[in-house]
Amino acid sequence: MSKLKAILFNCTLKAAGERSSTHAMLSKVEAALAKRDVRCETVHAAGAGIKFGTDSDMGDGDGWPKLHDAILESDILVIGTPIWFGQRGSVCQMVLERIDSMLSQTNAKGQYPLYNKVAGVCVVGNEDGAQHVGSTILYNLMQTGATIPPNAEAYWVGPAGGRDDFVDVALDDPYPNKMAAMMASNLVTLANLLKDHPIPVDENTAE
Amino acid sequence: MSKLKAILFNCTLKAAGERSSTHAMLSKVEAALAKRDVRCETVHAAGAGIKFGTDSDMGDGDGWPKLHDAILESDILVIGTPIWFGQRGSVCQMVLERIDSMLSQTNAKGQYPLYNKVAGVCVVGNEDGAQHVGSTILYNLMQTGATIPPNAEAYWVGPAGGRDDFVDVALDDPYPNKMAAMMASNLVTLANLLKDHPIPVDENTAE
Amino acid sequence: MSKLKAILFNCTLKAAGERSSTHAMLSKVEAALAKRDVRCETVHAAGAGIKFGTDSDMGDGDGWPKLHDAILESDILVIGTPIWFGQRGSVCQMVLERIDSMLSQTNAKGQYPLYNKVAGVCVVGNEDGAQHVGSTILYNLMQTGATIPPNAEAYWVGPAGGRDDFVDVALDDPYPNKMAAMMASNLVTLANLLKDHPIPVDENTAE
Amino acid sequence: MSKLKAILFNCTLKAAGERSSTHAMLSKVEAALAKRDVRCETVHAAGAGIKFGTDSDMGDGDGWPKLHDAILESDILVIGTPIWFGQRGSVCQMVLERIDSMLSQTNAKGQYPLYNKVAGVCVVGNEDGAQHVGSTILYNLMQTGATIPPNAEAYWVGPAGGRDDFVDVALDDPYPNKMAAMMASNLVTLANLLKDHPIPVDENTAE
Repeated sequence: MSKLKAILFNCTLKAAGERSSTHAMLSKVEAALAKRDVRCETVHAAGAGIKFGTDSDMGDGDGWPKLHDAILESDILVIGTPIWFGQRGSVCQMVLERIDSMLSQTNAKGQYPLYNKVAGVCVVGNEDGAQHVGSTILYNLMQTGATIPPNAEAYWVGPAGGRDDFVDVALDDPYPNKMAAMMASNLVTLANLLKDHPIPVDENTAE
Repeated sequence: MSKLKAILFNCTLKAAGERSSTHAMLSKVEAALAKRDVRCETVHAAGAGIKFGTDSDMGDGDGWPKLHDAILESDILVIGTPIWFGQRGSVCQMVLERIDSMLSQTNAKGQYPLYNKVAGVCVVGNEDGAQHVGSTILYNLMQTGATIPPNAEAYWVGPAGGRDDFVDVALDDPYPNKMAAMMASNLVTLANLLKDHPIPVDENTAE
Repeated sequence: MSKLKAILFNCTLKAAGERSSTHAMLSKVEAALAKRDVRCETVHAAGAGIKFGTDSDMGDGDGWPKLHDAILESDILVIGTPIWFGQRGSVCQMVLERIDSMLSQTNAKGQYPLYNKVAGVCVVGNEDGAQHVGSTILYNLMQTGATIPPNAEAYWVGPAGGRDDFVDVALDDPYPNKMAAMMASNLVTLANLLKDHPIPVDENTAE
Repeated sequence: MSKLKAILFNCTLKAAGERSSTHAMLSKVEAALAKRDVRCETVHAAGAGIKFGTDSDMGDGDGWPKLHDAILESDILVIGTPIWFGQRGSVCQMVLERIDSMLSQTNAKGQYPLYNKVAGVCVVGNEDGAQHVGSTILYNLMQTGATIPPNAEAYWVGPAGGRDDFVDVALDDPYPNKMAAMMASNLVTLANLLKDHPIPVDENTAE
């Protein structure tokens, strides 16, 4: 079987290279995927020239089209986002608005473009909102055709009122480590299953 | 291969036998599953003697334990709920609070109890909230080990401010019919895949 | 000015008298209200004989009608709930489904029944979901006519993966204490303002 | 009494001047506020040079600082956003991430900066998500000190699966018109009340 390919979106608001909790969590998942022989590409979304919009190509130097293609060439899609004000960050929402354009497209069989791909999510915040944010992202990817394996979220939040960052205080916390390992393991299992046994056409085409 | 088994929870607030939009939507999914040779059991949750609580057995004539066992014996789990005040209904939340108890249990391999099962959701309301409600339910079942196939929700809501019920005005609307067919098709494909190829133990056990 | 009256709903799943984090948080708010000379009544919702339904009176020994009246006689309404599976508990949702019935009623001026009342919320959970749950409850009460003052939620959650309860580990945490005091203070200020200056009729009646 | 001032944020993804449902809904609210003698300023957020970030000033030609000041000079704040993939749009989230910075600031009395201001929200989408999105925005503004009056959201969504836009099919729908009028009326009443009777300092300062 050919090697699986994963694309991971780091949707931090920070510039590339800045110390980032989102990056730290995604790195755990990337390491767990690489250990399972998955070829990984991580995209720093805020620096990728993605334009606001809901089409696949917003023209004029838009950075999205090649990311769109990279998603279609991948078997595994992981979105990583910080929580701001209880919600997924603006960069993450901007990425999902561009993925939304896939709902007017199909694969060669007429199914939504993410059929036969699997998806997971990483979420980090100071104190609250990780499950809400994770559920919204996984749901959107499921709508676009992705399969969501068990335990497909790795998250961290501190206690109520906390202002600490994951990257500063919890890199060795066993809980996110466990979640990252579970997620990576199940992403690989389901991605291999769907590679070997693609979902057949059966009243599941897009129109 | 032996026949697949599905369990569907109707979480309407209404008494059994009353005209119900939730029942109407679940019936579409049940028919689409039965057409694919799945053995279906539908549970009217409000009438099943389920007690408030978060343990698997709340004692004293609690109706949950046998439903708990019925879930474990199924390959496919579908939750159907009305939307009230924008959220999943109280009966649905009560059912999920009992499913929450599975997070302290495992299958024979040490994984969460819903591993190798697939899950979908039906949601109906007057005007708004179907995607939010659906995402919360699918997320909880994914946490407990279920795999979520593509397009695993069939829903209906009317326009803003509308007070009409699905069962009265939209039974022939092609949109929910299409969603029910897509969901049933993908539930069956993934359930069969996981029956033939159960998720192996690999850093994905519960502790 | 006559004394303000507050009604507080404790929506724990536990029986009355059991050790409860929801009770512990509500007690902080009740003390802060009482200190400001507010007459408080706390209702243990799970033990109040409230029936599932969305009418004001579900007949046959339904415990809701007298609670419905008690809300209408109050100036301040506080809902306290645990978080289960990331959402407001089933008892809380059941209470809100009964409050939903107020959307087909009005006060003497034709406005929704909670006009000129103020509302706040208390939420406790192990690790996540407090802001999402709080926002849904405050929003529903706002829809029914309540005014929401600044900082109208007191919550506590522990860190990701935590299983500790508020009542066991955080009763002296300054953060929830601060939130309870802020909420009580602002509830009283706004309730007094609206008592002295009720919202006039001006394109804000219910039909 | 001096004239009230309102600031309205149009968080459409579209360029200024493009036909926009968000603009159409905000216009209804603006007209209803102007009729009540409120001085209104509407900001097209996507075109205002706002940078991604969570500080009040992200430097280098950031368009936010003067909007930050304009909010502080206003009595009424209204956020208008489209729904994309069930959530508030990325431009709206970007604006709220900048408002988040106010949580580390205070007014002259030591309270959060939005104390004595009132807030409302406009939300438009094709089919679903208006109440969820509205609740998240109002909640964040309440956290930052705003008071939320009754019926503080005007929204429109079409039926499930619908792809029509508010601006094309529902400008004369009485439901959003009614909601816009209710919201404007109550925003003005509460803004005047708080202008005349600011919330006193009483255990409600930010630290």
